[in-house]
Amino acid sequence: MNAPVLPHLELINTGSELLLGRVLNTHQQWLCRRLADAGYHVARQTAVPDTAPDICQAVREALTRADLIVVTGGLGPTADDLTRPAIAELVGRPLREDPTVVAHLHTWYAARRRVPPPAVMVQAQVPEGAHVLPNAHGTAPGLWIEVRPNPHSPAGRPAVLIMLPGPPRELRPMFVEQVLPRMQRAFPLSTPFVCRTLRSTGVPESVMEARLAGPLGPLVARGLEVGYCARPGEVDVRLAARTADAAALVAGAAALVYREVGRHVYGEEDETLEAVVVGRLTARRRTLAVAESCTGGRLASRLTDVPGASAVFLGGFVTYSNELKQSLVGVRAATLAAHGAVSEPTAREMAEGARARTGADFALALTGIAGPGGGTPDKPVGTVFIALAAADGTEVQHHLNAFDRETFKHMTSQQALELLRQRLQG
Amino acid sequence: MNAPVLPHLELINTGSELLLGRVLNTHQQWLCRRLADAGYHVARQTAVPDTAPDICQAVREALTRADLIVVTGGLGPTADDLTRPAIAELVGRPLREDPTVVAHLHTWYAARRRVPPPAVMVQAQVPEGAHVLPNAHGTAPGLWIEVRPNPHSPAGRPAVLIMLPGPPRELRPMFVEQVLPRMQRAFPLSTPFVCRTLRSTGVPESVMEARLAGPLGPLVARGLEVGYCARPGEVDVRLAARTADAAALVAGAAALVYREVGRHVYGEEDETLEAVVVGRLTARRRTLAVAESCTGGRLASRLTDVPGASAVFLGGFVTYSNELKQSLVGVRAATLAAHGAVSEPTAREMAEGARARTGADFALALTGIAGPGGGTPDKPVGTVFIALAAADGTEVQHHLNAFDRETFKHMTSQQALELLRQRLQG
Repeated sequence: MNAPVLPHLELINTGSELLLGRVLNTHQQWLCRRLADAGYHVARQTAVPDTAPDICQAVREALTRADLIVVTGGLGPTADDLTRPAIAELVGRPLREDPTVVAHLHTWYAARRRVPPPAVMVQAQVPEGAHVLPNAHGTAPGLWIEVRPNPHSPAGRPAVLIMLPGPPRELRPMFVEQVLPRMQRAFPLSTPFVCRTLRSTGVPESVMEARLAGPLGPLVARGLEVGYCARPGEVDVRLAARTADAAALVAGAAALVYREVGRHVYGEEDETLEAVVVGRLTARRRTLAVAESCTGGRLASRLTDVPGASAVFLGGFVTYSNELKQSLVGVRAATLAAHGAVSEPTAREMAEGARARTGADFALALTGIAGPGGGTPDKPVGTVFIALAAADGTEVQHHLNAFDRETFKHMTSQQALELLRQRLQG
Repeated sequence: MNAPVLPHLELINTGSELLLGRVLNTHQQWLCRRLADAGYHVARQTAVPDTAPDICQAVREALTRADLIVVTGGLGPTADDLTRPAIAELVGRPLREDPTVVAHLHTWYAARRRVPPPAVMVQAQVPEGAHVLPNAHGTAPGLWIEVRPNPHSPAGRPAVLIMLPGPPRELRPMFVEQVLPRMQRAFPLSTPFVCRTLRSTGVPESVMEARLAGPLGPLVARGLEVGYCARPGEVDVRLAARTADAAALVAGAAALVYREVGRHVYGEEDETLEAVVVGRLTARRRTLAVAESCTGGRLASRLTDVPGASAVFLGGFVTYSNELKQSLVGVRAATLAAHGAVSEPTAREMAEGARARTGADFALALTGIAGPGGGTPDKPVGTVFIALAAADGTEVQHHLNAFDRETFKHMTSQQALELLRQRLQG
């Protein structure tokens, strides 16, 4: 196989708040993910403070290497928004007022019953020859500039410089609707590219790799790329190919993954486990309630992150104290005395009580020791019992989730969702 | 004032998963925040794939500019852990087996009743002359290398290269306990540096700036740096000074902020609003229950993120359906019929019912329209009622939180926590 011809692509994030550690750089992950899934490689990402010299130095260096440079942030109307004039000067393009942007600013403020403040009109200053990317969700347009000739490249290779506004709700639709299609026309991939991500839970990354290495081996020899990415409680399997038969190769690989570990694959691409569970409940017209102790509302909160969850999720109980385990969901005092709050019988009674008191078809109950305190030799920190009550009986699982508190809550809610998903399987 | 003499500091994150967008780069924020709060500036952050040429190119370029370079990731025992040998070769330091690391690896595996697999011993290969930073929480040590002479610097300026392991639970304690103290000895600040972050909720960033600009003006003229950082539902005010009287300047500024907007300042540095609320309830020996509709368990989950919350948080209800609002917390059918589920009377009855049925001193209830569906002209998406019931009566607030679903849930839970914090004020 020949190496694919791909544009050398770099990402530059501007913003002093990034280098002061006040905010997380979510643009990096979001943009890199979209670019990778479209078949492009990001060769480097750089964050610099929002001063003109820092921005120019980073862009100038990228222009020596890159065919395509995406710069985020600093396009707004305030004093620290310096990306547009800095780059205009760097590439020798004087700023000119763009009438379409002027019109957009007037329309934007008129819709909000305001006159545009004079300062905002600076956003209509566009480097000569730049293509304007209209911003449907904000005031600052994106910009696409062809740097041709490119005096910074040793070989004089032209480059494309794309500037995107910093707010994610403006950047993301602009990237998906305008930048990516334009990129795909300007930098078409030299070979077909297909990519598919299968999301699994309940199998550690090393076990997943060991189980798939053999079956996928022949496809890897034919050009399949396999990547694993583990997060607490889940492992993504990314299947990609850049070959003439990429679609068939990836489809064949996905079929193999489903055959080998399909029981543990809950979805693909950006699907979440909670959305899959809500979707299956909705399709079967079944309702759910929860009784949470150690997860303290985290399971309910994940379920209600899904738009439309109210059609199937009735609600439930956070029974953090032993008293509420008795009064709200009817755990018997004798059960607590004999087995303790973190026990198989307590989990069972919580789930059955929650189901009875809400009238739901299914009830999930969770009781455990989140830590850092509260562990005993018999029941160390991380001990968890998860019960699923249904019309045909109650099932209880026992896990040891010895993690920090936040990871513990996430893992435990993940296992509960997966227990229910397995029940709704097939 | 003279400009302070600070080391030029750069951060390099290695890892192909960063550039594929599979994981968020949390190291950037965490390390930049710690460095900034210790008075250092990070001039640039770069992420590169974990291939030896990419790592070397980024480190070589940084060596032309920087006094101090922190490199994360790629120190482990697997085939894609290339940072250590790549950098050793770049700076011309042959790898030698370090007996203290060999001993650590044997002890580490012995404690887990295992013999170290041969592959892991590669982590004991240390570039000649490097100082080993022991890893108490993992197998790969950190490394501190003085690059002296530094052939990559145009002026031959020496540099320090620090390599840290990728897993956050290994990197973070190593940075705080070993790297930062060593940095402070190697690169002492030329002037005192004091930094303090006050955390507020309930006041938009622009209002906060407008209220503080005047009062803080004279201190800014004397060298105070003021920074604002807004996240959904909160604004940090960062006060810093690099002057002989830095401590007095920052203390004076903090006193002014408390005087002007102290009612809205809930804590400092890394304190969370939920931890402050749990702390105040604990100090006053008061208990809390919740009844959540639109936040769907998010408020309970935030409260139970705080270790020790079980001393004051009894639990509560997620009453997502109207039926559960009636059966679990006693909202009257007539109230729902007359005013709807999203209304002042429903919120009031939810809070009072939750308080009565749990025996808590306080109960918070939240009902609203998270969206994207469910809005009406009268009650648009984002409409929220928050009630706080106590022995002396019930208070209800009305908000319009017109955000995406995730931000809506966070903002609404934030307002509920703040309502209770204000009640527990003074």
